[in-house]
Amino acid sequence: MSIRLYGSPFSTSTARVLAAISEIGLEVELVHVDLYSGEHKHDSHVEKNPFGQVPVLEDDEFVVFESRVITRYLVRKYGKKSGLLKEDNPRDAAAVDQWMEVETQHFNKPVATLVYQHLFRPHFDGVAADEKVVAEEVEKLEKVLDVYEGKLSKTKFLAGDSYSLADVHHVPYGHYLVTRTPHASLIDSRPHVKAWWDAVYSRPASKTATETLVMTP
Amino acid sequence: MSIRLYGSPFSTSTARVLAAISEIGLEVELVHVDLYSGEHKHDSHVEKNPFGQVPVLEDDEFVVFESRVITRYLVRKYGKKSGLLKEDNPRDAAAVDQWMEVETQHFNKPVATLVYQHLFRPHFDGVAADEKVVAEEVEKLEKVLDVYEGKLSKTKFLAGDSYSLADVHHVPYGHYLVTRTPHASLIDSRPHVKAWWDAVYSRPASKTATETLVMTP
Ligand SMILES: N[C@@H](CCC(=O)N[C@@H](CS)C(=O)NCC(=O)O)C(=O)O
Ligand SMILES: N[C@@H](CCC(=O)N[C@@H](CS)C(=O)NCC(=O)O)C(=O)O
Repeated sequence: MSIRLYGSPFSTSTARVLAAISEIGLEVELVHVDLYSGEHKHDSHVEKNPFGQVPVLEDDEFVVFESRVITRYLVRKYGKKSGLLKEDNPRDAAAVDQWMEVETQHFNKPVATLVYQHLFRPHFDGVAADEKVVAEEVEKLEKVLDVYEGKLSKTKFLAGDSYSLADVHHVPYGHYLVTRTPHASLIDSRPHVKAWWDAVYSRPASKTATETLVMTP
Repeated sequence: MSIRLYGSPFSTSTARVLAAISEIGLEVELVHVDLYSGEHKHDSHVEKNPFGQVPVLEDDEFVVFESRVITRYLVRKYGKKSGLLKEDNPRDAAAVDQWMEVETQHFNKPVATLVYQHLFRPHFDGVAADEKVVAEEVEKLEKVLDVYEGKLSKTKFLAGDSYSLADVHHVPYGHYLVTRTPHASLIDSRPHVKAWWDAVYSRPASKTATETLVMTP
């Protein structure tokens, strides 16, 4: 058995998979794809992911891309005992799916934009954050986190009282939001979101995954 | 057993669920949420979906939102025999998941924008399509459909030679793209995409679902 993860150091999508890998205690070979030199657009990579992006997982001859699909596959195939998907019961599974989809559809975009504005844009383009864009995305994120506050006042984690893949998926952008933007207060000012984030972020697997998120390769 | 789907006539997300429901031959009660009068923002609806959107599914006391999560739940709970999820084998399941995620991450945004520009904006705001936005999104969609053309030259459907939920999820926006925008040629000009779309769109379940997509309630 040989499992390879093609990814990049500052890539949040790669870190999302690493967080899941650490949670289930799996050993994988990390293959660095150099985004700086455009290695992800070379034929050898595009053969694996026709959209020319990282991460990609190779499990023997099986190849799969999209970070949130890779995590699901790994938990199913190698991490059933972790309980991260709750697939024994269709309703518990749907609760996990729902909050994974909320991360994808509601949480990801405003946070990714804020991280881009405060971290990637200055770092790669030498341009300061666009304050109008920042204000708009902060407003959107406030609304999303208000929904989280309501939900997390009822259960300890997003999909219930036990940790799930829905929580794991928030690790990379949550980390950048609190460490690399001036908006950590969006989390800190909401007591149930704060308690949830502390529980998520302090897990050893979250630490392992976010330690790989460095800005230079 | 009582299954209710809260949705709206012109809502693509509602139609996505209806397509899956028809594929698995399920009977559900349709409850019309009037988006025109803002019924989706009333307390009674926000209790079911804190983001104030349709569709929402109620299966006895169990409530779940997000169209792509509802379809997965219904197939798992009531439609295993349909084979739409292929969950008996983690690799087949991951192929379905991957192409569902491609629909979400790559296909949906450009098509939704084109449909908005050509259909919803003129209809609701009385403003013509913004040709600059249209050109940008057409270019993005071309690239996505080039990837589809490559994949569909190897297999009949997205996740392999049998129909899956990944194909089903394309029905509502595919329908609007070919019937309500001037860009049907994006599909017609790619022979494998065209053959795939013809196979998807001609299914009785797709017809049932798209017949509900009318512009006035
Ligand atoms: N939805 C994809 C997003 C992948 C993605 O955006 N990857 C970035 C790095 S985090 C990348 O490869 N960017 C290069 C590019 O898009 O050309 C996933 O979750 O895997
Ligand atoms: N990601 C959601 C999107 C739901 C959505 O955007 N629904 C629209 C109708 S298609 C809606 O309720 N719009 C009203 C609003 O967002 O306020 C899903 O797939 O269910």
